[in-house]
Amino acid sequence: MATGTLRAILCSFSIIFLFKLNVFSCQQFSISFQQPSDCGVDSYFDISSLSCVKCGPNQVSTKSGLACECQTGFRVLVSNGASITCQQCPDANQGVTQDGYGCIHCFGSVGENGKCQCPKGSVLLERDGNGNPLNESRCEACNATEPAFSAPDRTGNRCVRCEDSFINSSQSCVCGASNIQAGGMCFPSNSLPTSVVPNVIFSQLANSVLSAWFSNFMYSSAAACLLFSNRTACQSLGNMCVMNMHSFSTINNDACGLYNTVYRATAAQGSSQDISYWRANLPWLYYGDQLGLASRILQNEPLPVGFSFKGAQKNTNIELRAAVYSVRGEFLRWESVGGGNLQLCPDSPSRQQSAFTFGTAYKQSCVLSVSELLNGYPEPVFYDVFLVIQKPQEVKHLLAVPLLNINQQFNGQSTNEGSNMNNWLLTRRLMLVDTLSGRQNSLSSSPGVIRVASNIKIGFQLVPNTQKGQVYPPLMTVTYSDIPVTDPTTQTVTVSFSLEYTMDQEEARVKTDIALGVLGGVAVVHSLLKTASWKRRIASPLIDLQTIMKFLVFYAGDLANVFFIITVGTGLYWLIFFKTVEAQLFVSVLLPLPAQEERFVVYVGCAFALKTVQFLHKLFVQLSVDIFFIDWERPRGKASKHVEGSGEAKSQASPVSIWRTYFVANEWNEIQTIRKINPTFQVIAVLFFLEVVGFSNLALRDPSSDMRRSPEAYTPPYSLILRYGVASAMWLCIGLIQMIFFTVFHERFVEDKIRQFVDLCSISNISVLLLSHRCFGYYIHGRSVHGHADTNMDEMNTNLKREAENLCGQRGLLPNSDTQTFQISITNRLRAQYDRIIEPINRRSGPSRLVDASANPCEQSTKAYHTMNRFLGSVIDHAHREMEYIVKDKLLFERLIGMEFIEPLDKSIFYNDDSHSFADVLFYGNEAVLLIFDTLFFCVVDLGSQNFILAAVLTYLQQLVFRLIRNGMGRRNLASKTLVDKRFLI
Amino acid sequence: MATGTLRAILCSFSIIFLFKLNVFSCQQFSISFQQPSDCGVDSYFDISSLSCVKCGPNQVSTKSGLACECQTGFRVLVSNGASITCQQCPDANQGVTQDGYGCIHCFGSVGENGKCQCPKGSVLLERDGNGNPLNESRCEACNATEPAFSAPDRTGNRCVRCEDSFINSSQSCVCGASNIQAGGMCFPSNSLPTSVVPNVIFSQLANSVLSAWFSNFMYSSAAACLLFSNRTACQSLGNMCVMNMHSFSTINNDACGLYNTVYRATAAQGSSQDISYWRANLPWLYYGDQLGLASRILQNEPLPVGFSFKGAQKNTNIELRAAVYSVRGEFLRWESVGGGNLQLCPDSPSRQQSAFTFGTAYKQSCVLSVSELLNGYPEPVFYDVFLVIQKPQEVKHLLAVPLLNINQQFNGQSTNEGSNMNNWLLTRRLMLVDTLSGRQNSLSSSPGVIRVASNIKIGFQLVPNTQKGQVYPPLMTVTYSDIPVTDPTTQTVTVSFSLEYTMDQEEARVKTDIALGVLGGVAVVHSLLKTASWKRRIASPLIDLQTIMKFLVFYAGDLANVFFIITVGTGLYWLIFFKTVEAQLFVSVLLPLPAQEERFVVYVGCAFALKTVQFLHKLFVQLSVDIFFIDWERPRGKASKHVEGSGEAKSQASPVSIWRTYFVANEWNEIQTIRKINPTFQVIAVLFFLEVVGFSNLALRDPSSDMRRSPEAYTPPYSLILRYGVASAMWLCIGLIQMIFFTVFHERFVEDKIRQFVDLCSISNISVLLLSHRCFGYYIHGRSVHGHADTNMDEMNTNLKREAENLCGQRGLLPNSDTQTFQISITNRLRAQYDRIIEPINRRSGPSRLVDASANPCEQSTKAYHTMNRFLGSVIDHAHREMEYIVKDKLLFERLIGMEFIEPLDKSIFYNDDSHSFADVLFYGNEAVLLIFDTLFFCVVDLGSQNFILAAVLTYLQQLVFRLIRNGMGRRNLASKTLVDKRFLI
Repeated sequence: MATGTLRAILCSFSIIFLFKLNVFSCQQFSISFQQPSDCGVDSYFDISSLSCVKCGPNQVSTKSGLACECQTGFRVLVSNGASITCQQCPDANQGVTQDGYGCIHCFGSVGENGKCQCPKGSVLLERDGNGNPLNESRCEACNATEPAFSAPDRTGNRCVRCEDSFINSSQSCVCGASNIQAGGMCFPSNSLPTSVVPNVIFSQLANSVLSAWFSNFMYSSAAACLLFSNRTACQSLGNMCVMNMHSFSTINNDACGLYNTVYRATAAQGSSQDISYWRANLPWLYYGDQLGLASRILQNEPLPVGFSFKGAQKNTNIELRAAVYSVRGEFLRWESVGGGNLQLCPDSPSRQQSAFTFGTAYKQSCVLSVSELLNGYPEPVFYDVFLVIQKPQEVKHLLAVPLLNINQQFNGQSTNEGSNMNNWLLTRRLMLVDTLSGRQNSLSSSPGVIRVASNIKIGFQLVPNTQKGQVYPPLMTVTYSDIPVTDPTTQTVTVSFSLEYTMDQEEARVKTDIALGVLGGVAVVHSLLKTASWKRRIASPLIDLQTIMKFLVFYAGDLANVFFIITVGTGLYWLIFFKTVEAQLFVSVLLPLPAQEERFVVYVGCAFALKTVQFLHKLFVQLSVDIFFIDWERPRGKASKHVEGSGEAKSQASPVSIWRTYFVANEWNEIQTIRKINPTFQVIAVLFFLEVVGFSNLALRDPSSDMRRSPEAYTPPYSLILRYGVASAMWLCIGLIQMIFFTVFHERFVEDKIRQFVDLCSISNISVLLLSHRCFGYYIHGRSVHGHADTNMDEMNTNLKREAENLCGQRGLLPNSDTQTFQISITNRLRAQYDRIIEPINRRSGPSRLVDASANPCEQSTKAYHTMNRFLGSVIDHAHREMEYIVKDKLLFERLIGMEFIEPLDKSIFYNDDSHSFADVLFYGNEAVLLIFDTLFFCVVDLGSQNFILAAVLTYLQQLVFRLIRNGMGRRNLASKTLVDKRFLI
Repeated sequence: MATGTLRAILCSFSIIFLFKLNVFSCQQFSISFQQPSDCGVDSYFDISSLSCVKCGPNQVSTKSGLACECQTGFRVLVSNGASITCQQCPDANQGVTQDGYGCIHCFGSVGENGKCQCPKGSVLLERDGNGNPLNESRCEACNATEPAFSAPDRTGNRCVRCEDSFINSSQSCVCGASNIQAGGMCFPSNSLPTSVVPNVIFSQLANSVLSAWFSNFMYSSAAACLLFSNRTACQSLGNMCVMNMHSFSTINNDACGLYNTVYRATAAQGSSQDISYWRANLPWLYYGDQLGLASRILQNEPLPVGFSFKGAQKNTNIELRAAVYSVRGEFLRWESVGGGNLQLCPDSPSRQQSAFTFGTAYKQSCVLSVSELLNGYPEPVFYDVFLVIQKPQEVKHLLAVPLLNINQQFNGQSTNEGSNMNNWLLTRRLMLVDTLSGRQNSLSSSPGVIRVASNIKIGFQLVPNTQKGQVYPPLMTVTYSDIPVTDPTTQTVTVSFSLEYTMDQEEARVKTDIALGVLGGVAVVHSLLKTASWKRRIASPLIDLQTIMKFLVFYAGDLANVFFIITVGTGLYWLIFFKTVEAQLFVSVLLPLPAQEERFVVYVGCAFALKTVQFLHKLFVQLSVDIFFIDWERPRGKASKHVEGSGEAKSQASPVSIWRTYFVANEWNEIQTIRKINPTFQVIAVLFFLEVVGFSNLALRDPSSDMRRSPEAYTPPYSLILRYGVASAMWLCIGLIQMIFFTVFHERFVEDKIRQFVDLCSISNISVLLLSHRCFGYYIHGRSVHGHADTNMDEMNTNLKREAENLCGQRGLLPNSDTQTFQISITNRLRAQYDRIIEPINRRSGPSRLVDASANPCEQSTKAYHTMNRFLGSVIDHAHREMEYIVKDKLLFERLIGMEFIEPLDKSIFYNDDSHSFADVLFYGNEAVLLIFDTLFFCVVDLGSQNFILAAVLTYLQQLVFRLIRNGMGRRNLASKTLVDKRFLI
């Protein structure tokens, strides 16, 4: 008290004067930590002050440590609520009375606890019938024979009737020599082996433990079950068999051996509930051991009620109920499974309950500390699990759920480990945590090994081709882990609980294979056609290595499309049939398991790899097209030029300005990478719908089609197929919408870059010749209807105005036609001439600079440019008799298969082409390839990372990189082919 | 059996022949659901077959329903394990013996259960001392007086020593008339009021319940505590006070009244553990009721140990320990808080444990079903919570954690509800769920009202300015909910558990205010300067409304920057000081609470709104600049033109081609919206770093700076300030990196669009005059060094080559200079002339078409174009004496403040400007404004939605929309100002 007051005063001082006393801590409300076990033998733990307080003289603390009692040989003299006073018993032969308040002479001996003791079979009396204390204690022997049948009760103070089994076996309370006394009961000799094997086998540790529980109770349980049909004993015996993992062999004196012995011996008692494997009075542990029984049980007959995800008959609730038994064999209660009784991992009730929604792939797993298990599960509890079947207007029925115990051994073989259902031995009765059977010396010792049901899985299988949501009986699979207890506080065990839904995927696989075969065949034909078309266009009849390579590349593209169609179709199939409102009125499909998705992922990978080949090939082809701008402008007058030195002006044709060509080339450069969609918008929009609107939630493995999930609710894992389905559908939809928007609205009302380019050609009096193949290409006729375009603003404006008012001729190549764009098949001769003219230009960029080293390469190429300009102009103007051409329409069938039927042997052929198909050498004309490539790229990244954001980022980067490559290399190609300086292509 | 076999056979048939029998269900392993309560009085529940089985004759089921017993008046004749046989006792006056196996004549009466009964104070004997059955039962009275002091034991079979309090009070086992018998004890009359108020007040329901528990035990607990210092009784009394919410008033006979009476009466016993509020033997419930005591307890003295997030002295573990008492007052154990004992919501252990990591804002809440609470908490358990303080090399100390019970009433006032700490009354001892006190009639009846600790909050407050991580003692705040039990299965209650960390934010607020004031002042000055500069540039000396508007707009921009700097600074401050490695060696700052973040959000909102004003203003200004392309090209020769009608060729100056102007205009159109960064890449990169790399995890309210979080771990809520800090830092960093990349690498080695444009001007012989203000603008000198640019490819290539080989003059405006770009201050006279010439062009787009309706507007504007071209050309060529200009360098200070010192009164001034500042009228020159606007847009969307993906999507759309607006409107402005047809701006 004094130090406390002093401290309080000092503290106040220190606070008032802001003066810190460092001598001792001023913490006001702190106490030192003490607990009952700290107090020692002569102190007790004062529960009000939470500290140890010394006991009075001659006192020791009680076992709990929370109070004091008199030490041995001392009696309580005064007891006043909180405290007692003790006094030694005066006489040496006196003991303390049982209540501790008196001293008494003992008739028998004085025990170690200072109290009187009586021999076995006798009771101790210290008071008479009226409660008056005796001078000397008495020991009275209980009469064990008829009619008394008495024995001392548990406290040893009274004689009471002894246990029935003694009376039944020996007509006395003493178990005779011919009988066997075990577990507090007395059995007549019987058919059971008298020496039992009380070992629990922990096969994962290759170890067996001599279990105290089995030693104490196994024989008595078996005997009481067999002889007295004691139901609790039977359950207890069954529990021991479960604790031994249902394992049995030819040995008949281990737990399951005894169970089977009793099972066989009681065949006459008949079966329970008309189930032949369920013997009356015994627990039902086995479904027989015939081969192939498991598949008959599991796949013969569907459940009488179907599951339905939607509608009035919605039924997604899996109701499981378990009969719960204690380890002693007592029936505890019926429990609804859920709310954590089979789920060892703690979680919120609603999340745990969502395990039992049909179709929701559920997996919960966590790491538990062994010490917590030891505290929380002192004894195992046993569950007989049933599925509740509630048909309308009928009483509840329970269907026994078979259990596949992976750890079970049958004659030393782990038959249940394999996937061959015919070897399985189905059982019943489950336990979660067994910390009892591993106790070796006594039941209160700590266990050497514990066993935990580390993996519980409930699997449902859909009946094939069901339209009514029928499923086969569920199968519960349990795997136990054996854990040797060495350091419980640091040891952990991983446990998981899952529900799995399967259906036979064989049919789907066969269908996929058929589709793949058929479409693959079509792809071959298509690729052959394309190769043939290509051969014609390069005017080469030989089948050489290059042809085969070309075929393979075409085939890669077509095959990629086939894989893409099949994978998207599969994804959409699952998405629609598993998720949407109509389809699942009754459950008819269930998602493939993650392991079954592997083939699908391989298909997607193939599609992506092949598409990449096609895309890179397209890119390469585009980067090497031949292009030439034909300038129709002719000089309009003479420019006066001062010839240096002579001093006189010389008249010369004024130069035609090159700026129109620059302008057209610059525009061509710019339209190289425009697309029918905005690719960045595409990426962002897909990301928005998937992640913000929540379409990604459609890919979760449950039947719900909600796009908003509460963060508190259980989130099932993702299905790869559904992720792919959602993502690809999203890409294609948004791509299609964008394409429609751009073609229908934007290009018509805002801006059409391709048409603008054609217009520009016309206005600038420049034609474009594109040769994508050796003898095939495109021609944009840009001859100005005004004759001249290289003029000043007044005239340009006048020209534009005249054209707007329809005052001049039509722009077409043929008179009175509007067709400006053509696909062209040129003759070999024309091509040869073209190549001859272009040679100096190409040579400039070629590696060999040996030829014509003297000539100025620049001048030469300019000369070639002028030659080419003149030559092509004259060809278009029909000036070359031997390089004539005709204009015609393409046949519908020619358009369809993309191949020209007529070979341009004598005359080149110009096919009218109003659809601007010259865009095929640009990104614009290959939107399908690009979109599918982007889609596959996005999906492949997502399948690898399961992260839509990462996929979007990488897709954006991919688009950026390829756009830069296409732009940069395209610009270089353009500059080298058209001789327009790169500096003007900006 | 027979039906079962038949069914089995039929089932086999149906399986073999695939023949469906619809008559009855073939489900093999199903049973009907029965439970013990279904079985009725004459059946028992067979635990092996899980069905009801009829009892034998004269038998009824036991109370548990799991076995049969003989009905009243019948004895067990044979008992053979599973079954018994019963026989009626032959004689009418005979009762069945206690063990049920015999019949006996009763000395006293036969009770309702068919067994013998004895009067009170007597014991029943049916056997003699040796266990032999008597013919007639005997009733022996227990001797209540000294020295026997005996009374019947609980079973009524023996006389044993009676309870001490009887002996102490009355020297007998009978409590005399002068004494008071209560709760199984006997008390001498004492100072306690004999009539107590056993009501529990549920103030939320305005209801009080007469509690069976209080009626039974309140008086006896109080009396035993006061008179016998019975520690368990004292605890039990304290518990009742806690169950009554610590509420006390002047009434002294309710639970807390009795506690306080005892507290006062036992003042002489002194205090426990030197804590003055903790009376010896009593539980510690109150910290006194002086005003202001709470703040002294909570804020006087920090804990002796500091918290540290990192390093060797890392200490983030909050170790709480609770002394746990049962409702009866027994001390149960010391418990470590955590692992769910105070957390009612189930969750995984690791997640629950993370509540006790210092600095992690923890909040767990869930909805619990009332029926689960009734099952799980039959009796309340009471916790005295302590904080463990473990200094190195010292024993553990426990610091009492004060409790603020929000429901406590003091004289009928809820003093603890307010936030005024001076009115608080701190208490101790907490309970979680009380389903006991609400039981009205008996302890086994179901409760009418239950009370749940629905909100438990533990708050830590940091000592101001601590560098050692010191905190004040924690405060535990509890709110109880009173729930009237009407339908337990559907009723729910929401409970939550949270930890909160606060520090005094006043200082930070003051600092922010100071910064805001200072920077705001600077902003005013800066805006005034800008306004002055603007006035000079528009050459208007008047201060009119427009000037004030302009000032406000400038001020908005500057103020936006101020807010931006302050918010980013604040965000970074918290990010750095709360999260990074170095700073938190000892905890020195803690995050503001969500409620304290409001001011910050307002600041961000201001910054965004003001920035938007600035941005829109910039956009508007850019869309209305005056621009003119001056073509220096002169005709080179005569073009021959056939004059219609006359038939003779007429020579005329050949027209200068307009295509160079088109080219330049087209390029200008294209560079309008280029930026120093790639804005889409910016958005994608920010999203990547935030969501994929995981920077967003830095914004969680815990001290961890991990960017990867396990999905199993607890995820604290986000802090808005940290989100803003991370997002804005990310934007600015990536923006800066991009800017550096583009300026240092890309523009130098790949492509610099601005320089390209200037080059293009030079090559195409075209100058650009830009007037951003009335008398201020920019001039790009593009006069070709070759004299002519309108020529063919040969000459162009030659020119380019000559220039590359430095064979021609320099491009600059002044001889021998390279400076091509200028800022220009033009005289009023020049501007007036400009306006006069441009008038017809502007009129064309103006609303009034009345004037000159006859004249062709197109022709007129072309004429104006030529006039302007000539005029501006002559001005640049110094051909106009009265519109002379000088070229000079800008002063450094002029550059810095962005204002010209010299007014161009007489001569226009061309300032050399190598830094291409004409880009100020493009997006390119305003990167800072755009970047900050984007950043703020992103952050504002995120603060509103807490979704970075949505923010990224909307930011992308915002950029897209503004780019389209700028491009479209800019193109229109360009077309109208330069007379270049829109069709060429593609």
